[in-house]
Amino acid sequence: MPAKFSFQCQAQCSHTQARAGTFHTPHGPVHTPRFMPVGTLANVKTVTPAQLQAAGAEMVLANTYHLHLQPGEDLIAEAGGLHSFMAWPGPILTDSGGFQVFSLSKIRTISEDGVVFRSPRDGRLIEMSPEHSIHIQNQLGADVIMAFDECPPYPADREAVIAATDRTYSWLKRCIQAHQRSDQALFGIVQGGVHLDLRQAAAEQLAQLDLPGYAIGGVSVGEPPELIKKIVKATTPLLPPDRPRYLMGVGTYREMAQAIASGIDLFDCVIPTRLGRHGAALVRGERWNLKNARFRRDLTPMDADCPCYTCQNFSRAYLCHLIHAQELLGYTLISIHNITELIRFTQQIRQAILQDRFAEQFQAWLQPLEKGQSSADLTQSGREA
Amino acid sequence: MPAKFSFQCQAQCSHTQARAGTFHTPHGPVHTPRFMPVGTLANVKTVTPAQLQAAGAEMVLANTYHLHLQPGEDLIAEAGGLHSFMAWPGPILTDSGGFQVFSLSKIRTISEDGVVFRSPRDGRLIEMSPEHSIHIQNQLGADVIMAFDECPPYPADREAVIAATDRTYSWLKRCIQAHQRSDQALFGIVQGGVHLDLRQAAAEQLAQLDLPGYAIGGVSVGEPPELIKKIVKATTPLLPPDRPRYLMGVGTYREMAQAIASGIDLFDCVIPTRLGRHGAALVRGERWNLKNARFRRDLTPMDADCPCYTCQNFSRAYLCHLIHAQELLGYTLISIHNITELIRFTQQIRQAILQDRFAEQFQAWLQPLEKGQSSADLTQSGREA
Ligand SMILES: [Zn+2]
Ligand SMILES: [Zn+2]
Repeated sequence: MPAKFSFQCQAQCSHTQARAGTFHTPHGPVHTPRFMPVGTLANVKTVTPAQLQAAGAEMVLANTYHLHLQPGEDLIAEAGGLHSFMAWPGPILTDSGGFQVFSLSKIRTISEDGVVFRSPRDGRLIEMSPEHSIHIQNQLGADVIMAFDECPPYPADREAVIAATDRTYSWLKRCIQAHQRSDQALFGIVQGGVHLDLRQAAAEQLAQLDLPGYAIGGVSVGEPPELIKKIVKATTPLLPPDRPRYLMGVGTYREMAQAIASGIDLFDCVIPTRLGRHGAALVRGERWNLKNARFRRDLTPMDADCPCYTCQNFSRAYLCHLIHAQELLGYTLISIHNITELIRFTQQIRQAILQDRFAEQFQAWLQPLEKGQSSADLTQSGREA
Repeated sequence: MPAKFSFQCQAQCSHTQARAGTFHTPHGPVHTPRFMPVGTLANVKTVTPAQLQAAGAEMVLANTYHLHLQPGEDLIAEAGGLHSFMAWPGPILTDSGGFQVFSLSKIRTISEDGVVFRSPRDGRLIEMSPEHSIHIQNQLGADVIMAFDECPPYPADREAVIAATDRTYSWLKRCIQAHQRSDQALFGIVQGGVHLDLRQAAAEQLAQLDLPGYAIGGVSVGEPPELIKKIVKATTPLLPPDRPRYLMGVGTYREMAQAIASGIDLFDCVIPTRLGRHGAALVRGERWNLKNARFRRDLTPMDADCPCYTCQNFSRAYLCHLIHAQELLGYTLISIHNITELIRFTQQIRQAILQDRFAEQFQAWLQPLEKGQSSADLTQSGREA
């Protein structure tokens, strides 16, 4: 692990693999388990950095693919890097762009060398390789940077998944070679689709590389939530216990609780801001559409126990009014709550782990999914495309 | 003046009619001259109350017509009034709805009794009379409420303006009768179109009524800015000097400076948030389109001397990036700056008046408009329709 980074485990659950830790980065600590808000284009949609801090955010995400297309990594480097450009003083993680190249770019050629795709913005041909992605991420200057991986779609046949997993591994080694900055920690990504044996083999292979952190990628791409649980349970214990572990694109209550029980530390998901922009709030494990007529005259806060700015100041009726009027402020206020809510959920789990009450206190979330459970629909497309 | 209100004049310019005062309301003081942000639907678009306070806002506006249509004054009364509903602890002023009834409602009948119009929301017939407007405003609970007036369009022939001005006066007397709450100050509105003699007669008539405050309405409706100056100059000195004076719908630099020189204390305008939502910033008297290519690589703040959150944290290049990406956060950040900017402009004028440097320091703004000056286009449609 580079000198400016460290991961300390403060507590280990006695019933599950759950752990409470602190991941130190050059821009401050991340207390795990922790949900990380997504700021694809160097901003968390509708929320200012000051509001993000008040919501309890520690590490936030930005995206290499999108920032390369606009405004370009050279401008951000000139601004002193992402922290300065977006005025976020805390830790930042950049996704490598691999996922977006495969999910957003229809016209492309994939070779061992890399990927060529047409910019959806202006049609120009862009090449993205492991070296190029790392170069861009070195320019962006996030604390944590991600390996450039190939994320197979779901469903995909086993041969295609094997090829993508092998390529991800050989690309990872090139990423390690290309990486230039000791103040950035490069995380490897475990692929392997829904095939547990491929996942396990990939995890064991990556664990040998002594990376500062590990991610499980290629989940939340359309597979049933129950499969995410199985993949995480089979894979996570094979990753080095003294390194942070990050489950990419997952940020629903149940899936986070289950993944934490398998030893995951970090999560990200676009759900809180995407729902916020549609007037939907995450409240105590439920999804509420604030446009619903039942909120029209409801003068109570969304959640009286929530410390967020929105719940401390506004009623459900006021938010319902803003959403009906299509006032952008409504999207901001609900996004602030949703981000606070998911961070608080992981903070509460952290507290429970520190007191060794996790398995008991979060039992309901850890139980297997029952048919028709509402969390399933929240799991789809959790990662920012 | 009701017991809970008072207006003190702290300084009088020795060269102009400009004055610095304090208008005390049940929700705190307003230091005049002062720009007031517009929060039509019980929110200042894209800006939270906390951000508004940081921007220096004291009194903010809300709108009777729009709030009557949605969510309805009964809900807001049940919430404890506008202050509680929109979480704005400072003074609030509600516009009477007169302007909107005349500008937004195509199908209507006007009689001495009032106006009947179809709701643009659902087509239902709504009657708005002086009594009804005041009843709604009593329910909304703002500190300052406005008389229900008839605002003649521009251009309009003299006979039509006389009829509207007479009706405004007889409606004002009914408003005074209907008004029920001593914790709300009812302001009268001077109409009279662009006819100085009608304006002056109306001002003299209103001054007899010993109201707690006076407004000049029916300006910024499409007439040349030079006419606003003439109307204000001819009318304001006829209003009682010991009462606050409010120029409705005007919030451009030059027009505010000129109106202050004639003795105006309060201003409102939708420009800062409307421009913000279009990616345009008000900077030192200019209007900048942040989408412009010249800002793409400009890493300086919009205005290094501006204390606002936006200028203290973000570069022009960052704002340009957000606006290009159509990120709603860009609209919020620019609106915060624009509101701060116009409030600061009036605060700087206040300081100058207190030190009797106003005429000298704001000379450039007080000079007559020259041909092709950019402020003209900013003046149109300043009032929220
Ligand atoms: Zn909340
Ligand atoms: Zn500013």
